Amino acid sequence: MAVAVIMAGGKGERLWPLSRDRKPKQFVSFGEKSFFRTTVDRIKPVVGEENIYVVTQENRVKSVLKDVPSLPKKNIIIEPVAKNTAPAIGLAALKVAIWQGPEETMIVLPADHVVRDEETFKELVHFTFRLAEDNCLITLGIPPFYPHTGYGYIHYGELYKKEGKWEAFRVLEFTEKPSQEVAEKYLREGTYLWNSGMFAWKARVILEEMEKYMPDLYRGLMTIKSKVDTPEEKEVTNRVFQELESTSIDYGVMEKTDRSLVIPADIGWSDVGSWLALEEIFKKNQQGNIVLGKHLGIDTKNCIIWAKKPVVTLGIEDLVVVETDDVIFLMPKTHHQEVRSVIEALKRQKEFRELL
Amino acid sequence: MAVAVIMAGGKGERLWPLSRDRKPKQFVSFGEKSFFRTTVDRIKPVVGEENIYVVTQENRVKSVLKDVPSLPKKNIIIEPVAKNTAPAIGLAALKVAIWQGPEETMIVLPADHVVRDEETFKELVHFTFRLAEDNCLITLGIPPFYPHTGYGYIHYGELYKKEGKWEAFRVLEFTEKPSQEVAEKYLREGTYLWNSGMFAWKARVILEEMEKYMPDLYRGLMTIKSKVDTPEEKEVTNRVFQELESTSIDYGVMEKTDRSLVIPADIGWSDVGSWLALEEIFKKNQQGNIVLGKHLGIDTKNCIIWAKKPVVTLGIEDLVVVETDDVIFLMPKTHHQEVRSVIEALKRQKEFRELL
Repeated sequence: MAVAVIMAGGKGERLWPLSRDRKPKQFVSFGEKSFFRTTVDRIKPVVGEENIYVVTQENRVKSVLKDVPSLPKKNIIIEPVAKNTAPAIGLAALKVAIWQGPEETMIVLPADHVVRDEETFKELVHFTFRLAEDNCLITLGIPPFYPHTGYGYIHYGELYKKEGKWEAFRVLEFTEKPSQEVAEKYLREGTYLWNSGMFAWKARVILEEMEKYMPDLYRGLMTIKSKVDTPEEKEVTNRVFQELESTSIDYGVMEKTDRSLVIPADIGWSDVGSWLALEEIFKKNQQGNIVLGKHLGIDTKNCIIWAKKPVVTLGIEDLVVVETDDVIFLMPKTHHQEVRSVIEALKRQKEFRELL
Repeated sequence: MAVAVIMAGGKGERLWPLSRDRKPKQFVSFGEKSFFRTTVDRIKPVVGEENIYVVTQENRVKSVLKDVPSLPKKNIIIEPVAKNTAPAIGLAALKVAIWQGPEETMIVLPADHVVRDEETFKELVHFTFRLAEDNCLITLGIPPFYPHTGYGYIHYGELYKKEGKWEAFRVLEFTEKPSQEVAEKYLREGTYLWNSGMFAWKARVILEEMEKYMPDLYRGLMTIKSKVDTPEEKEVTNRVFQELESTSIDYGVMEKTDRSLVIPADIGWSDVGSWLALEEIFKKNQQGNIVLGKHLGIDTKNCIIWAKKPVVTLGIEDLVVVETDDVIFLMPKTHHQEVRSVIEALKRQKEFRELL
């Protein structure tokens, strides 16, 4: 058996105004179900709902349970403060080890990503679980189809194992977000994959790697360990997390470990990291526009439109148009990585703070 | 005494989606009162409400009376079909001549224009009425402040009369909408005024000119004349109007007559002929934006924003943003004269026809 750990603590500011401070990206949706709910439903047939753990903050618990009422409340793991992925994953690994045993395999899944090819995904998860038996750390890598500068890349080397059409490779290197030039080089070389943020390993194995490469975090986890399922757990966890550095699992462990494998996973993945990601998820119409809503475009092309009201455009190109219940937001596609500057501006202006 | 004839039959398609087929431009507003209501209120102190006549179509009567409930219903003159300004003015002149006498002076006022300097306007109207006693046709001309290519221009010659600071000049020529080059030449020469569409004359005088230059129209009016205030009036008026050519008063009479005077009228006028006209009416903010509503602009300049919901823009320039209850409309300022192509597109697409 294995468990899934869904990371549901993110903010997703770049998807404002769809995502908000009070409703982060994982709880919004481009269709009927939220990204979080979709993530749960996708992995449920593989591990069973009772084996789905969710890491999130205290103030998101209501949203989690509202979104997936059948989720056992005890499966929600609270990170007292958001300290990036490594502490959250460490805490989850600790609890999985205690509750299900240290040899339990866990797959880590971000709650706010899109996976269009669910069948392939499920088959790959099973392959991943089998690999985890070899005490390695497995990452799902996405075959890149354009030189994206917003993702980390994984450089892979020799084949480690092949099972039918599934292959796992040894990791040569985890790289940071590249420049345009470097990203183009990666794409040409063909031995690089996008880091999807989906990982699998035995609880014991990731804790061992943390002991080796993140000793502060490991010490903190051991402090918590003795208090798990006691009345002091919450207070101790709070205290430990306050002291921890914010570190991603990529930087803290994956870039350093030598037990790393990567599986090319062609699963229709997108991290929906910005409004531009809609181009990865939805098909453009004949005018090159992506429309979620009702749109009449005259002399209009290559726009992204997400609106409740009908939108009529005349002579418009490369524009992102978003309308929610309380705001209209416009930017050229070129600015899709700068949405955080909107959040900053909203914070500074009292009369607009309700839009945060 | 004198009367005012307010022309309230226009469509104002270029102000879509604020103006609609069911709610043409004269009945919309940028503030509390509609353009029509503002036009009535502006002239009321000069002529008295009982002397305000409104020319409109049958299906607009309700809107007229809803907007100005105190208006005597008998003062609404119905044009059976919109045939541009000459037939409408001819019909009004005929009725004024019958009801108030042929020597009555009438001022013709479009219902959908903005006049910011109401005091100057009123003083000029009195001057205009005095001039009309000389049996001439007077136009209010607007001193141009940029080379607008959407207006007709009036070339004026020698001074005809001066009263205090008011001056009337003989008209040398009414010109059609000029090219950019020609408009720039007009502006440099300083002897050209914009044709505001506001005219004054005695009822008898304009009818005489119609007899001379628009004999078909005049014949039609004479057919109607014998039936005014009889049960057959409506049917005869319908029949006559069906046959009439659509002709503007500018083309039909003003360009031909030699009894024409023009008064430079610096009255803060705008015909609100397109969304760009908001730049003539409202002051730009520090970023060069004109905002009617709530707007947070980051790296945003020279936009026109008219919206009910808050609008947030990032990296936007020279864009017109309009939001009404049922639609969001976007276009670059450069396209402000092409809004009719939107109307055409709406007509072609069934699912959008409700936005007409």
